[in-house]
Amino acid sequence: MGLFITIEGGDGTGKTTVMSKVVELLEKDGLDIVRTREPGGTVIGNKIRNIILDKENISITGMCETLLFAADRAQHVEEVVVPSCNAGKVVISDRFFDSNLAYQGVIHGYGIDKVYELNMIATKGVVPDLTLLFDLDPVIGQQRINSNKNREVNRLDLKNLEYHQKVRNAYLEVANKFKDRIVIVDASRTVEEIVAEVYKIIKNKVKGMK
Amino acid sequence: MGLFITIEGGDGTGKTTVMSKVVELLEKDGLDIVRTREPGGTVIGNKIRNIILDKENISITGMCETLLFAADRAQHVEEVVVPSCNAGKVVISDRFFDSNLAYQGVIHGYGIDKVYELNMIATKGVVPDLTLLFDLDPVIGQQRINSNKNREVNRLDLKNLEYHQKVRNAYLEVANKFKDRIVIVDASRTVEEIVAEVYKIIKNKVKGMK
Repeated sequence: MGLFITIEGGDGTGKTTVMSKVVELLEKDGLDIVRTREPGGTVIGNKIRNIILDKENISITGMCETLLFAADRAQHVEEVVVPSCNAGKVVISDRFFDSNLAYQGVIHGYGIDKVYELNMIATKGVVPDLTLLFDLDPVIGQQRINSNKNREVNRLDLKNLEYHQKVRNAYLEVANKFKDRIVIVDASRTVEEIVAEVYKIIKNKVKGMK
Repeated sequence: MGLFITIEGGDGTGKTTVMSKVVELLEKDGLDIVRTREPGGTVIGNKIRNIILDKENISITGMCETLLFAADRAQHVEEVVVPSCNAGKVVISDRFFDSNLAYQGVIHGYGIDKVYELNMIATKGVVPDLTLLFDLDPVIGQQRINSNKNREVNRLDLKNLEYHQKVRNAYLEVANKFKDRIVIVDASRTVEEIVAEVYKIIKNKVKGMK
């Protein structure tokens, strides 16, 4: 049996940059890594992703959206995650159901339990072996973006900040509920520091494989 | 409050022909009828319907398909069914979740209870006030089709018969589970006889409105 790892966290927490470097290190160690993502890790999933992200579909209801994510996930788990794990590979998915627990469960108010229940039906009980939550104070994230753009924080940024704060809190609520599975990664440090920590966490988990 | 009626049954049971005539009669009586269908009763639903029916998507898993139907339904209920019922209209939907209970629940083996549970999440508890199940022995259905085409039953027809028999039995199992809601309509009679019965059943239900 392989390993199923998911990566979570708001936009701008640097998870993509970090994971690219970590995957490089893991592959150097001879591990067979399958990098995938949600929504859209399959051909059908990409068609579902297009409906979810289509800006024309502004009338889409929260429940319809939640179920489209779950449909994409069902296909992704059965077509990619389970066969790869069965072949002894390490599957790393950019986002999985914790995104929906945070956004739909907490922020849109459907409740973590309800969205979890739905996802247990969708994945037929498949749960990640490990989830890494990239956690960052949105104020720091905004400062980083603005220092790159050489400008100060404006009114629009502050509005965005409020939303990003909500997302952060929602993710922390989810992490608190699934302490055994979700590891919080302090994303305020340098990329090198985060890469080193994440690499170590995954290597430890790999030792427990088989 | 209006009324929410769903029409179920295998292909070739004549439900579309009958319902067109019944709706005509009901509209003559001054009732405000909203005719709709699943999958695809909304703009977003039609996009979901395209994924479900796309012959290229042969690798679609049963669970992904079930969740796409549920996503379409969530949008349909919130955008069409509930607002129309709240406006005092009579909503008649060609297919609703009993189709999934029969096909995915019974034939694909997910279990009626599991698919029902999922749909209760999708519809937020909305259940039809009345469901008419058009029931027909597939042998009669096949004979009707073949007498129109002026030919005898062949090997392919027999294979189809076996499948249609499965569909019929699955629907009857669902109807048996929800006796209070589902009325079985004997579709072996003439169109005039069926129209008369269905019209009477709906008129009786309309009396109980408000």
